[in-house]
Amino acid sequence: MFYAVIPAGGSGTRLWPLSRAGHPKFLHPLTGTPASLLQATVDRLSPLTTPERTLVVTGAAHVAAVARQLAGLPEENILVEPSPRDSCAAIALAAAVIAERDPAAVMGSFAADHLIGDPARWAETVRQAIRGAEQGLLMTVGITPTRPETGYGYLETGEPTGDGPLRPVIEFKEKPAAEVAEGYVRSGRHLWNASMFVWRVDVFLAELARQQPALHAGIIAIATAWGTPEQDDVLGTVWPTLPKISVDYAVMEGAATAGRVATVPGDFGWNDVGDFHTLGEVLPADEVGNVVLDADAKPDVLLRDSTGLVVVPHSGRLVAALGVHDLIVVDTPDALLVCPRDRAQDVKKLVDELKDRGEEALV
Amino acid sequence: MFYAVIPAGGSGTRLWPLSRAGHPKFLHPLTGTPASLLQATVDRLSPLTTPERTLVVTGAAHVAAVARQLAGLPEENILVEPSPRDSCAAIALAAAVIAERDPAAVMGSFAADHLIGDPARWAETVRQAIRGAEQGLLMTVGITPTRPETGYGYLETGEPTGDGPLRPVIEFKEKPAAEVAEGYVRSGRHLWNASMFVWRVDVFLAELARQQPALHAGIIAIATAWGTPEQDDVLGTVWPTLPKISVDYAVMEGAATAGRVATVPGDFGWNDVGDFHTLGEVLPADEVGNVVLDADAKPDVLLRDSTGLVVVPHSGRLVAALGVHDLIVVDTPDALLVCPRDRAQDVKKLVDELKDRGEEALV
Repeated sequence: MFYAVIPAGGSGTRLWPLSRAGHPKFLHPLTGTPASLLQATVDRLSPLTTPERTLVVTGAAHVAAVARQLAGLPEENILVEPSPRDSCAAIALAAAVIAERDPAAVMGSFAADHLIGDPARWAETVRQAIRGAEQGLLMTVGITPTRPETGYGYLETGEPTGDGPLRPVIEFKEKPAAEVAEGYVRSGRHLWNASMFVWRVDVFLAELARQQPALHAGIIAIATAWGTPEQDDVLGTVWPTLPKISVDYAVMEGAATAGRVATVPGDFGWNDVGDFHTLGEVLPADEVGNVVLDADAKPDVLLRDSTGLVVVPHSGRLVAALGVHDLIVVDTPDALLVCPRDRAQDVKKLVDELKDRGEEALV
Repeated sequence: MFYAVIPAGGSGTRLWPLSRAGHPKFLHPLTGTPASLLQATVDRLSPLTTPERTLVVTGAAHVAAVARQLAGLPEENILVEPSPRDSCAAIALAAAVIAERDPAAVMGSFAADHLIGDPARWAETVRQAIRGAEQGLLMTVGITPTRPETGYGYLETGEPTGDGPLRPVIEFKEKPAAEVAEGYVRSGRHLWNASMFVWRVDVFLAELARQQPALHAGIIAIATAWGTPEQDDVLGTVWPTLPKISVDYAVMEGAATAGRVATVPGDFGWNDVGDFHTLGEVLPADEVGNVVLDADAKPDVLLRDSTGLVVVPHSGRLVAALGVHDLIVVDTPDALLVCPRDRAQDVKKLVDELKDRGEEALV
């Protein structure tokens, strides 16, 4: 009775010029295999559920690509957002559609663009979260931090209430300053918030109704019309009125304050593939630390006296590097990026600059 | 009565991937203007001679491109080498063809792929060399060294023999070690050998006959048949038998020993455009030291927090650099190069490696 929901949104601007508004991160094979991040996400769910119980929520611009990449998914399981309204609307829509099919279902929400090093261990962690959800808790999967990362949000946990792995979540913490992050890691009580959620759809929708009554009402109106001739009319009318808000902020923070959120700590090699440096850390490197994405592509690369590179040869051209170190080189048919790995986070600034210049075709 | 000869050979492997065996350095607009190096060389000659008295010697593979770039040059002034036989055969062929037209002509030989910062000053220096040539000397134009360069040959000069700028050349020196080069610069008597030669064709051919009788005989046989129905037959038979040797080594070193070589020191901003670092030093840079070749091309480049770059956007794609310094980035339709400016000399090693791999299409 477990349903999986995969919100497939966000363009991944820190992975420009590979990731584009028109062909975002989750559609790319950034997994070290030919599978895209989205395909790997669905594959990873196979021990837990079936394609019939797997739903993807994505933007209108990406439906066709999603449908082709996930050929085994029933068409009606690909939910189309007419416009981006952030994660709460997307996840709530999926929850309400599932509730129409099965009011007592447990669903999990998993981003389309993360990598998991050990899928079996991940599945076991999700099974533990499902048991918590069956008891009526809004569950998250928290990641045991391996460094004082300032780019992620954190979950502050309390004392375990029973023998199992569940811990109550006391508070959701925004991305911290460096010193704060160090304190979190030392505390042993803080986990990375990987935006993995598991809950009974009825519990989630009740909490949504309590905290976000307007959003709840809109979503219920849309879900009621779902699959009827009125679907598109209602969606087109109601969707644009929904608040643009994340599910963390809209529901989970308030639910944590009310004591309704718990987490299962996970330790399965999680990576959000946020930028090319991070990608280089998770994919296999050669003996001098160079990572070549899609290394089987021809013509291949020519790396001489170069170490610690992340190379994405994505245009069919030869990429030659001589005497360079710890650089990112991303080669696509219409744009090339060269930047040091320690500036990987700032790639989004280039995208902003291109937008400012009006070069939308390159974004 | 001054003739100009432009040997247009050499592929410029240190300028790979821009310069290719099939489209070598001299055909490229590396001048900061739309003119190619070859076109700029011909333009620079206009105060000294006419297109009718300008000859280009080039390989069969490049004749068509040369003919199109130099539309003002008479067809018969483009001499075709059936195969590369180094500079002595190329220059001697031109000298012998000129001697057939005008036995007492003075000719100058100027490489097709060098840049001159101050063409008027250069022309004045060449005029001084012409006056020395008219007196029966084999003249060179020596460059006043600005640094102890180890990549060039040097001319060791003696005391001036008269009031004019002429100095005898005592010896041609090979590319020196660093310490030796420092001694040369300190001496004040050593000039860079820029392979610019000016002489009467009869004097040069006599010296060639003395030092290289076989080469001289072959060249005279070819020149005698030049413009007759036998031209191609004789060229095809004789040319492959000619010694493969540079004019410096074959003629000038021996002539210097015999006291027949003099030079005029030149100070006109000479650059052999040997590699991308050198190119970056001679072309105009922006306020943070970035040089973009052909900066008017679209889509242009996006350089952020980056300094000292040499960027060649030659594929029509956007080149974006973030937080990098003193790098060379050369973007062509089928190959990309990233390397630090201080490794520019080693680019030829990449070309060697590509040849070893059998990737001739990329060389």
